Amino acid sequence: MTSNDPQLEFWFDFGSNYSYLATMRIEALAAAHGVRVLWKPFLLGPVFKAFGWNSSPFVLQKEKGAYVWRDMQRQCDKYGLPWTQPSAFPRRALLPLRVALLGAAEPWIGAFCQRIMQANFVDDREIDDPQLVGDVLAALGLDASALLAAANTEQHKLAMRAQGEQAVQRGMFGAPMFFAGDDMFWGNDRLEDAVAWAAGHVAARIDLA
Amino acid sequence: MTSNDPQLEFWFDFGSNYSYLATMRIEALAAAHGVRVLWKPFLLGPVFKAFGWNSSPFVLQKEKGAYVWRDMQRQCDKYGLPWTQPSAFPRRALLPLRVALLGAAEPWIGAFCQRIMQANFVDDREIDDPQLVGDVLAALGLDASALLAAANTEQHKLAMRAQGEQAVQRGMFGAPMFFAGDDMFWGNDRLEDAVAWAAGHVAARIDLA
Repeated sequence: MTSNDPQLEFWFDFGSNYSYLATMRIEALAAAHGVRVLWKPFLLGPVFKAFGWNSSPFVLQKEKGAYVWRDMQRQCDKYGLPWTQPSAFPRRALLPLRVALLGAAEPWIGAFCQRIMQANFVDDREIDDPQLVGDVLAALGLDASALLAAANTEQHKLAMRAQGEQAVQRGMFGAPMFFAGDDMFWGNDRLEDAVAWAAGHVAARIDLA
Repeated sequence: MTSNDPQLEFWFDFGSNYSYLATMRIEALAAAHGVRVLWKPFLLGPVFKAFGWNSSPFVLQKEKGAYVWRDMQRQCDKYGLPWTQPSAFPRRALLPLRVALLGAAEPWIGAFCQRIMQANFVDDREIDDPQLVGDVLAALGLDASALLAAANTEQHKLAMRAQGEQAVQRGMFGAPMFFAGDDMFWGNDRLEDAVAWAAGHVAARIDLA
């Protein structure tokens, strides 16, 4: 794909269960519509804190939380995805998010994100762990220690923080979020709509040219 | 349809915008799968109050609220439904809900609910209004004054309150909600899943018999 292809921003946190569904589905859907995915890892916790919540709404509201785990099992069955309810939720994911931000435009970003998601939502493992993240990078044939070092520089930590500030500024209140231009779509349930919107909008722009 | 058909409970409030989408879509979808709709009108406000919220989450959280109106326009465009952002939200709907509870098993329930929803989300009219509700009933060829009188008896008011208590008891935290047996599905986005689940579950029970 080229930079002239229609683009869809995909904002996600590795701790977010509905981001797991979107991470596993987005590449095939976007490719089928000729849409390029712009991976936008961000920390959801500070966004929730900006709303005065000290955890996920799924934790703060026990009825919604109970529903969500049942819903996840059904959704994963529908999409043919494996699923294990994580024994800790929401999991802290700062290190893998920093690595994802580092590799956001690299060819390995999709595979990296899928493997981190699987570690959380299939293998029920802690993911904010240098050993686990390093193993995933190495399994992808990458230089794990160089990437982990780059992810932990002061400059890159600031870039990660700026990403979260942009999320708040653009009105995000959860994850996953998709942006086709300025048009925001919330949740895995809107992935199909967002991809179609991104594809159609560029077509409309070409018609006008 | 007979009482042996698979059934899907549809819990809704006329003030809920995503209930509007489901109200306009459920009859055709359910009929296509041989599923009978059990209409379950309830007052969402007391459920929100049970969670300590004094209004809709779309009002309490302005970012989510702004998103929801944009989402509604796109969803209505997708489904080919008319849409006007109501000038008052969420609208109080106690009287039409009482009438809907009265007529829940009557052949006119679907048409009545669709017309009340259209008054709120297309014509932008107050719906907790005896004149408007009476006009809708009369337009359906029904005895408006007899139905309004029956809706306002003390006994029926208690039935309406019991409906809301059941909603809290069964773990509802929003609307629309669908139940296929004990399986709860939340939101218009899950209508297709809920209908398919209801249809499939009865087939499974027959297999076991």
